[in-house]
Amino acid sequence: MPKVDGARLEARREQILGACRRAFARHGFEGATVKVLEAETGLSRGAIFHHFRDKEALFLALAEEDAARTAAVVAEHGLVQVMRELADRDAGWLGVQLEVRRRLRTDPAFAARWADRQAAVLRATTERLERQREAGVVRDDVPVALLADFLRLVLDGLVSSLSAGMPSAHLSGVLDLVEDAVRRPSPGTPSSTGPQQRPAPGEPLSQAPVSVPPAHSTAQEAPHDQH
Amino acid sequence: MPKVDGARLEARREQILGACRRAFARHGFEGATVKVLEAETGLSRGAIFHHFRDKEALFLALAEEDAARTAAVVAEHGLVQVMRELADRDAGWLGVQLEVRRRLRTDPAFAARWADRQAAVLRATTERLERQREAGVVRDDVPVALLADFLRLVLDGLVSSLSAGMPSAHLSGVLDLVEDAVRRPSPGTPSSTGPQQRPAPGEPLSQAPVSVPPAHSTAQEAPHDQH
Repeated sequence: MPKVDGARLEARREQILGACRRAFARHGFEGATVKVLEAETGLSRGAIFHHFRDKEALFLALAEEDAARTAAVVAEHGLVQVMRELADRDAGWLGVQLEVRRRLRTDPAFAARWADRQAAVLRATTERLERQREAGVVRDDVPVALLADFLRLVLDGLVSSLSAGMPSAHLSGVLDLVEDAVRRPSPGTPSSTGPQQRPAPGEPLSQAPVSVPPAHSTAQEAPHDQH
Repeated sequence: MPKVDGARLEARREQILGACRRAFARHGFEGATVKVLEAETGLSRGAIFHHFRDKEALFLALAEEDAARTAAVVAEHGLVQVMRELADRDAGWLGVQLEVRRRLRTDPAFAARWADRQAAVLRATTERLERQREAGVVRDDVPVALLADFLRLVLDGLVSSLSAGMPSAHLSGVLDLVEDAVRRPSPGTPSSTGPQQRPAPGEPLSQAPVSVPPAHSTAQEAPHDQH
């Protein structure tokens, strides 16, 4: 086909995806009937399903678009950055995420098909954590897979919480805390996760501070969101 | 009414709740028709709805039972302990949780009614964190409300993740990490969340270890689940 037609087809495809995302967000996957999709796109069902085999194919295209974008953001900036951008994502994104999660629970065929999309995000997360660990930024006292699981749990919680209309008033600070939790602790920090307490460089073992002094009950809550 | 009848009524009520929890878990709230509830309880609809006004009242009784138990565990052992017990909870518990979350999204009247149940769990969490902070166990460089939000996010993620059939292979270690993240860092630990770096007791400021030495890229992943 001529190049100009290819570009036009691609633009039409994008237009349909955008409109259907809004429709899914507003009505849910079941509620977004073909009639609703026609109204939202301003196109006939014939025109819509010229580009996508059926509603299922449309939904999968949206979900895969999101998974690819998530994997790309993770590879460059990490999973916490995905979370920071979550609050700014539109309801359409959240709607697709919720539908994906519902299907994972209720539709074994979808869950099987979706497995390699999840694997791609997990792989991007793990690879970035490994690079960060090489660079001395990420803690090395627990397996990278454990850190990746931790980040995935928080992301799941964020999606679930945002979708239930319970955004955290402290979101930015909570995500700082999450980032902090995967960072490499300083030498001499008491750790609950293992015996890897090391003295500070040049500090004799016997003087290593390994316990927390109790006297700080008068400490004030510090303002947190400085960045 | 005579005392023995009161006890019998209570036992019958508990029997109905247990059976209906199984039915909701297996069929979802909508799918658990009155017919299904009759089969699962072995009782007639007349007998069931002698104890509970309708299916909605039944569901609320289950959800409130769970919220009360969660608040009690939080008050005594903290929200992380609730998470540790999550993996052992039956599918019935998870089913009720998911239905609560779905309703929060889709049913504003339910969301309004549920607000004070959520508040009770949040209050128990906050009060325990405050006691722990007084005792010098919990970090004091961020607001307690932020720590409570962090814990709630992880709990939400855990419920969502378990319900999608994605249990973490590292759950115990992930929860250690979560507990660690709300603990008071040792003096001298570099913190990304504020300028509160303090020297160790008796250690001159100039020697306080505030930066992480870069040379640890050869470190091995340590086995984690020692406790």
